[in-house]
Amino acid sequence: MRIAVVAPSCALKSEAAEAVQSIVAARGDCELAIHSQCFASDGHFAGPDAVRLAALREVMADPDIDAVWFARGGYGSNRIAEAALADIPEAARSKIYMGYSDAGFLLAGMHKAGLDVAWGPMPQDVLRDGGEAAVSRALDWLDRRDPSALEPGLRAPALAFNLTVLSNLLGTPLEPDLSGVELLIEEVSEHLYAIDRTMFHVSASSNFRSIARLRLGRVSDVLVNDVEFGTDAPAIIGGWCRRSGIEFAGRAAIGHDAENRVVPFPRRPA
Amino acid sequence: MRIAVVAPSCALKSEAAEAVQSIVAARGDCELAIHSQCFASDGHFAGPDAVRLAALREVMADPDIDAVWFARGGYGSNRIAEAALADIPEAARSKIYMGYSDAGFLLAGMHKAGLDVAWGPMPQDVLRDGGEAAVSRALDWLDRRDPSALEPGLRAPALAFNLTVLSNLLGTPLEPDLSGVELLIEEVSEHLYAIDRTMFHVSASSNFRSIARLRLGRVSDVLVNDVEFGTDAPAIIGGWCRRSGIEFAGRAAIGHDAENRVVPFPRRPA
Repeated sequence: MRIAVVAPSCALKSEAAEAVQSIVAARGDCELAIHSQCFASDGHFAGPDAVRLAALREVMADPDIDAVWFARGGYGSNRIAEAALADIPEAARSKIYMGYSDAGFLLAGMHKAGLDVAWGPMPQDVLRDGGEAAVSRALDWLDRRDPSALEPGLRAPALAFNLTVLSNLLGTPLEPDLSGVELLIEEVSEHLYAIDRTMFHVSASSNFRSIARLRLGRVSDVLVNDVEFGTDAPAIIGGWCRRSGIEFAGRAAIGHDAENRVVPFPRRPA
Repeated sequence: MRIAVVAPSCALKSEAAEAVQSIVAARGDCELAIHSQCFASDGHFAGPDAVRLAALREVMADPDIDAVWFARGGYGSNRIAEAALADIPEAARSKIYMGYSDAGFLLAGMHKAGLDVAWGPMPQDVLRDGGEAAVSRALDWLDRRDPSALEPGLRAPALAFNLTVLSNLLGTPLEPDLSGVELLIEEVSEHLYAIDRTMFHVSASSNFRSIARLRLGRVSDVLVNDVEFGTDAPAIIGGWCRRSGIEFAGRAAIGHDAENRVVPFPRRPA
């Protein structure tokens, strides 16, 4: 199993790259090709759009690569996702793609294009407390589809997105078909009022309303408000589900943390 | 001219209410009825949804009220906007409504419903540096449609929205028809990467792409990033305009500050 790492959003830290390479070496069941683009820099991004796009297209087209693992989130994959998915090379269809958070823009577009994608931990997660377990979990899925890596309550077909990313996907060419899926969402570093506002936005979408059920992952690093919001994230999500006739089926084991589990997206016809 | 003040989002500070009443008393050309709901509290909001909705419906239906002035922004008007616009009482059609920021959810829905609305300063703005001028500007427009209150470069028909509010309006029943309008946007307290992401979202909308041209108001209190984003707000907005074939016509005199000018929305058929 040969896994390529590219960074369509922000740059990978070199200490993360080294730590993940050590984990891979100790496993002995895979090989990690960390693309030099992962360490490029252009302001917020891991290199200019053209550089990030070229690296992603290169590994997608490489028949010797079995998996493409997004280095980390941050922001920026949406800027290149449509171009990455134009004229998809045949070799791109025989590999799996994994990431989460901002990489959700790519997961959505790739899923829509019929590629094999999964929500799951990324190399930069190794720097979290307990991050080695997160990275090992991702590799267990990439290497051998180990079911112990999976989010434990999955009722397939399932999709998983960061809530803000999902909101920004709606109405774009990358918007995934949500009908009949179990949808898992999670959020990080937002105010509760912003989460409420985002749920107003997404729950107005007929596509969103067509899901089978919703589960909520972790909502972490909630930003402090000048006035207490007055309720919590599960109550906010549950409230909007009630308003829009969606089944709220409780919590999910995904989030911006080392316990983040894998959610394989259903494979769609190309 | 009898002006009602209600708070569909967050509570009005009592010192703001007193200061605005003093300004109104000194003018002698209008009367301000500050609804007690403005001082209600329910967590983040100026009272529960039902209380905020009832106050708004009450002043909309009151034939003795000539103008409804939203007390302040914050968050929450979206939660009651659809209900506020159900079975619009006849008296609601002969008054003007003014506000900005979070009140944009109401401005959008009211404009869509054929009511007379304008973007402009709100009572709570009196607490800003130079806020007396902002409040006087709003009153000049409400009282006598004083053209000196207007955003100086307007090419009607024009609409104005906070960018995040506009993004969250898309796909909802409140989404305004943007075709052929000059659209003014502004932003406050967001990271530059979030502004870029929001422009990705809105510029994918065919409705957004149907505007005549876009102008950018102030982008204030930009949140500091761990890595410098690498460009600024006008470059971000200009870049997405280029990508989506929209004319970017430079800056506009609106924003979350005391220099915020009035933008009257075009009156639509009811």
